[in-house]
Parts: sequence; C-alpha cells; structure tokens
Amino acid sequence: MQTNVGLLGYGTVGAGVARIISLEDALLCQKVGWPLKLAKAVVRDLSGRRAFPAPPGLLTTDPSEVVANPDVQVVVEVMGGLEPARTLVLAALESGQHVVTANKALLAVHGREIFEKAAQSGREIFFEAAVAGAIPVIRTLKEGLAANRIQSVAGILNGTTNYILTAMSRGGATFEEALKEAQELGYAEADPTTDVEGADAAHKLILLTALAYGVLPALDDIRAEGITKLAPADFQFAEALGYVIKLLATAASNPEDGRLEVRLQPAMIPKGHLLAGVNGAMNAVMIRGHACGDIFLSGAGAGMMPTASAVVGDIVEIARLANSQSKLTKPSLGWQSLKAETVKPASDIWSRHYLRFSVHDRPGVLAAIAGALAAHNVSIAQVIQKEADPGTGQVYLVMLTHSAPVRSLKAALDDAASLEGSLGPARVIRVEEFREGR
Amino acid sequence: MQTNVGLLGYGTVGAGVARIISLEDALLCQKVGWPLKLAKAVVRDLSGRRAFPAPPGLLTTDPSEVVANPDVQVVVEVMGGLEPARTLVLAALESGQHVVTANKALLAVHGREIFEKAAQSGREIFFEAAVAGAIPVIRTLKEGLAANRIQSVAGILNGTTNYILTAMSRGGATFEEALKEAQELGYAEADPTTDVEGADAAHKLILLTALAYGVLPALDDIRAEGITKLAPADFQFAEALGYVIKLLATAASNPEDGRLEVRLQPAMIPKGHLLAGVNGAMNAVMIRGHACGDIFLSGAGAGMMPTASAVVGDIVEIARLANSQSKLTKPSLGWQSLKAETVKPASDIWSRHYLRFSVHDRPGVLAAIAGALAAHNVSIAQVIQKEADPGTGQVYLVMLTHSAPVRSLKAALDDAASLEGSLGPARVIRVEEFREGR
Repeated sequence: MQTNVGLLGYGTVGAGVARIISLEDALLCQKVGWPLKLAKAVVRDLSGRRAFPAPPGLLTTDPSEVVANPDVQVVVEVMGGLEPARTLVLAALESGQHVVTANKALLAVHGREIFEKAAQSGREIFFEAAVAGAIPVIRTLKEGLAANRIQSVAGILNGTTNYILTAMSRGGATFEEALKEAQELGYAEADPTTDVEGADAAHKLILLTALAYGVLPALDDIRAEGITKLAPADFQFAEALGYVIKLLATAASNPEDGRLEVRLQPAMIPKGHLLAGVNGAMNAVMIRGHACGDIFLSGAGAGMMPTASAVVGDIVEIARLANSQSKLTKPSLGWQSLKAETVKPASDIWSRHYLRFSVHDRPGVLAAIAGALAAHNVSIAQVIQKEADPGTGQVYLVMLTHSAPVRSLKAALDDAASLEGSLGPARVIRVEEFREGR
Repeated sequence: MQTNVGLLGYGTVGAGVARIISLEDALLCQKVGWPLKLAKAVVRDLSGRRAFPAPPGLLTTDPSEVVANPDVQVVVEVMGGLEPARTLVLAALESGQHVVTANKALLAVHGREIFEKAAQSGREIFFEAAVAGAIPVIRTLKEGLAANRIQSVAGILNGTTNYILTAMSRGGATFEEALKEAQELGYAEADPTTDVEGADAAHKLILLTALAYGVLPALDDIRAEGITKLAPADFQFAEALGYVIKLLATAASNPEDGRLEVRLQPAMIPKGHLLAGVNGAMNAVMIRGHACGDIFLSGAGAGMMPTASAVVGDIVEIARLANSQSKLTKPSLGWQSLKAETVKPASDIWSRHYLRFSVHDRPGVLAAIAGALAAHNVSIAQVIQKEADPGTGQVYLVMLTHSAPVRSLKAALDDAASLEGSLGPARVIRVEEFREGR
C-alpha cells in the first residue's frame, strides 16, 4: 500500500514538498503507516532551474497526469494564482481526489465554490500552508479549539510588511528605504504591491474568519489598509507613547450587537503585548476563546521549507484519514454551513486612535482641532506637541483619543482638515487595547 | 445518531467538560455533525459540591456504567492518579471504546502498556489536556509538524512554579514567600511538592519526548530538578547578567552522538527570548524542526476551562474519526514503534552554567576557585563579585562558564567546596543558549 501525491506546480514551495517527501521517506512512512510517493508534478515549462532537482520522469506539462488520475490520491496545488488553479482543484475534488493547497488567494476568492465541491464529493481540502506558513493555526482553529466560542483572532500574517515595519521601528528608515532593504534581502518581491497594500494578509484574514466564525467575507467587506503611508515620525511617536506599530489582521465577534468586526490595518500594539515582540519576517496569531483564554502561536510565516512543512503535514493527515477508502461523511470544517452574515461596516467600529496632524505653528490651531473633535464627541486622552521646525514653521500635533466610532472620528477629521493652519489630512492609526487576558 | 461520552471523575476538570458539553451543544453538534451527549459520570461519592452542577441522573459510583458499556463510545478519564485510572482506561480500550485523558502521570508511568493496548484494539487515546492545558502542543507535534525531524522541544510546563518564579523575579521574594502567595491565590496546592520539586513538569516532558522522538523515558532517566533551592540573590544576578530564571523542560536530539538530552531544571533564559516573556501561571512550548524552524506556542496551562477546552477538543476529533465505526488500522502516534533508546546521562550533557559561590571575603579565594575550575577544564566567561557584607564578611562570587560537560563541572565544584574560605556548595543554574533561530 502507498499514497501517491501529485503536485500542481514545482516552484519554490513545490520543490520544498518534493525535498521533504524524497529525503524524509522513512520518517513519513512511520507517521502514515505506508510510503508516500511523488507521482507527477505539473509545470508549464519542463526546463528551468529548480530549488530541489526533480527526480527523472516527475515533471510533466499535462495536468491530466495528476488531476482525475485514479492512481493519484492527493493533489497538492502549489502553482498559485486563480486560474487554472481553480479549475484544476474543482476537477480534482469532483473526481474523488483529496486536495492540499497553499493558495490563500484562491480560497479567499473562490472558497465557497471549492468548499461546497469538497463537501459534495466527501473529500478533504486542507490548507495549513495558506496562512502563517509552518504555524499550525488552521489546525488549531479547526480541531484544538473546537470546543470554544472564538472571541477574536488577531495576527501578524505577512512577513514582508513585518520585516519592513521592524526596520522602520529600529532604524528610523522611511518606508521606501526599508522596502528597498527588504527587496535586497529577498523578503520583498520586485513588485511588492500584494504585500504592502495588504491584499495578501487580507486573503489570509478571510480564511481565519471563515474558520473562526463560519463566515467567508468578501475582500470588499474588510477594512483593509496597507503600510505605505506610515512615516518615521509615526514610529518615533509610537515609541514615546509605549507602542509598536504592526500590520494587524483582526476578526472579532461583538457580543453586544452580534456582528463581526473584520479589519486589516496598521495598529499601535502596547509594548508589553506578545504581538509587539514579533519582529522581522516572523508571523504570529493570538486566538481568544471563551474556554481556552488567549492562545498565542508564532513562527516563520513563509519560505520554502516552513511552507513545505505545513503542506506535507496536511498530506500526512489526509493520507491517514483516507486510509479507510470510504467517503468521509462530513468534511472537516462544516463549511457547508457557511453563513452569509454581514460584517460590520468599518465606520461602525469603535476604537481608540492615534492622530498625527501636520499644522502651522500658530496660536489657536490646537484649540481649533480639539474643538473639531469635541464637536463630534471624540474625546482626547493624551496630546504631544513638540517644538516647531524653525525652517518651515511646521509642527506635528499628536493625539491619542478615547474610544469612539470611526464614523465620528472621520467626520471630525474632515472638519479639522479644512481648518486654517492645517497642512493636510491627519495620519490615523488604530490603537489596540486587547481588553482582558493579555 | 449521537456520540455518548462517559466521564471517569467529576472534579474541576470533569465539571468543566460537562459545562462545555451542556452549554455549547449547538456549537459542538455543528463541529461533529451530530450531538455529543453526556451519558454518565463516575464519582466516588454522590454528594459533594460541584463546580458545575451535574444534570439529574448523570452521577454514578459504578464504573461499569461507563467502562465497557456498549452505549458509551468515548471514555474521558479526568479522575487523576495511577489507580484505578490505569485499570479503567485499559478496560475501556480493550472493550473497543476510545479514551481521552488529562492524566499526565498515568501516561508517563504506564504509557507503554496503555498505548500498546490502544494499538492492539485499534482505538484512539487522546491527551491534549495532559500537557500545557489549552495550548495545542500535542496536536502540533503529532500532526502539524509531522513532516519535521524535531531538533528540540523546550517548554515552561508548570504554571505553579512559573507563577512563583515570576513573583521572585519581580518582587525579590524568597521561595517560601512566593509559594505562600501562590497558595493564597489558588495557584499552588496546600501540598505543593509535585509542582515545586518538578515531578508534574517531568511527567509532561516525558510525553513530549515520546511525541517528538518515539522514546518514552523513565522518570529516572531525566535530570529533574525543582525550584526550591533558588534564592533572591540568583534573581538579582540573573537580572544583572541579562537573563530570566525559568523552570525549563527540554528534550533535544544531538546530531553528533545520536543521543537524546532530556532534562527539567531551572535555567537562565536570555531576556530577549520568547520563553523569557512567559510570566505568571502561563505555559509555553518552543518546538524546533528541521523544516518549520522555531514554532512558539503559549497560553493558559491549567485551570478548569482551559483544561476542559483541550479535553472537549479531543472528544470532538474522536467523535468525527469514529464516525465510520470501522476499526482504525493505525492509531495516531505510531506508539507501537516506541524505541528503547537510552537517554544521555546528565553528566554527559554540555552546557554553560551560572555558579554562585558563598565565600569568606579573604585574599586568594577567587584565585583558588578559578584554579579548581581550570583544573577540570571549565573555562570562565564572566565574573561578578560585589562588596562583602560588613557584618558577616560573607560575599557572593558569581561566575558564568563557557560550555563544559556537567561531569567536569561537578568535579570542579566538589574541589571548590572543600577549599578554605568556601561556605558550602555553589548554586548551579544552567545557562540556555538556543543557538540558531530565536
């Protein structure tokens, strides 16, 4: 007996999967109970350099050697992108194959269709590698914390942006300088848009929301904001105020109104909090459940071997589950019960905020801005104003507010921006409180 | 269709399990696919106060209403202790029931017999709650990181001792004072021996070693040391040297000699390390694998609801696995392949050490101690000597050594203890390095 694994894609992650299955055959055989065998790997082009050399005969350009091939029990999709990944994954499930994927965009966009197909076919779709690399966050939400009503999931889900924010925080670099350094060291791609504008982390957040709440929000439902507008001054003020700036993905239930808050945005994290200590390209997730309390998981969120570790962990579990050869009557997640619940509009969310105004150093500016906030019932908790730049007469006025609805804050800031002495819209960063627990 | 659950024991954890199964029935039904039902709970005494009131008819004093009762599919052992727990668990597995247990002592002492019985019967024994409460460390080692050769597992596995060490570190308290505070707040029991002498954490370490390496060491194989000998001075010196003292459980493979190091002892952890930030009653585990790198997990390691969260998570998974009603051909762990590999004797382990000597403030004492270390090839990295107490003439001489075998260190310290001016044996604490990664 053996389990045959077919790869769709043989890039960095595919090569990592092939490396583990080839070199750790004895270990995997012990875990599964019989050998795992690499059957075929579908690529666009048979030539080209590989991070782990493909054994002779492994590579093919014909997807039908893997998808719907009755000799292949597990299909591993590591090609990325939406098409042809979607068509191939659906066809594999339809034909009775189990699927492992590392493709967060595919599941975030076409998840409903794919999970329904898996349920209809009685087949599994596993995706531990799609969120936070080797960190077992999917398995923890699905299984370990199955007894919990999840109150919130908050995570640092993108290594590229965390690397850049860590560099900006430590070295006083601008965003552009830190991005360039990250690109030189291989932490950011030549076109970093998907990472720095937040789409990658937002896709992962959509999957965590689905696991925690059975709700698969659309990308448009999420208040998603990247890190491109952060300036060195924000990091200096954060440091002075006792915070660290992170790109934080959060899904939280609100017991008062029963609606979900789902947001991805730069956030001020109190320095003592575990998430504040997650630096460089590391990822981390904090899950709060009604019974378990706060569970914190961290580790490498990307890279060839950490991602391959997660993919092969899924293959091992599927190989063992598929043992009976009988149809599973119920797939892992209860995805068939995905709710269409609405996510709370960003403007309805309450929060404390950090505001950085650029103003002319003139009498009455502070009073006018404070007045604009007061007019919309946004209460100020703390103010910092430093000496003006003698050359420009420009000064930063920084305020921490008490908790207020984003709607009120936005109205107040619109008023403030049009005040005499204002030099443009304020920079706004959410201040996280993590009430109760840690 | 439903899955019937029988409890052995209805103490704090049993009541927590009953609470979740009773109050979260809709959630659990969604996760499993059909209802979980509490069938019976076996107790010694039907009267008595319960942390969650037992539904009418639940309690019984007759174990045969749960064990080997064909109407009960999952037996949950939360009675603690070795007997009758061992006999009842073996009988349940023998009769074809699956077992969930929170009993680390039972598995550490009788694990071989119990896991063999589970394998023979084709039944599962799950024990997420036995190590680190709600933190999904068992599941992560068994499943999430199945593709990894595990290089080390290092953890803070006992909340009572971590609470005491945190108090000693922050407040300058003696061990006795901190223990008293922990007892008053419910973090330590009236008889704290099992916690403070290290047996509880050692039992958990045995289980982690079995999961990571397929080796179930005996308690005698482990270098196990509690926290009762630590003094306020050690915490002050640790702070000055950039370390935090934690009771650290470690299992590590050594690629050079192929032997396992398994140890439980107070250790100096560098301040910046994630494990150094685990305070109060929290637990944490750092797992290093060849593909995943360092994975860090932390959360509540004990308490009614966190422990019940882990137990019910196991029940949910077993209920779903047991769905097919067919025998599982291979239990989760490959326990049948437990190796009898020898664990490295403590004296063969290499490490850096912190040494605190109490000496008379006399000329030549430092030279003589340094000479004793040099004679055994133990090299000194750093020395601190403060002004002597004018009343007693007594002084602490603190040294950090370079890495040396414990055997050599011990010989050197024996020599040093008999030197003139020595006021008794040195206090020795391992200094952790966590080379590579974090």
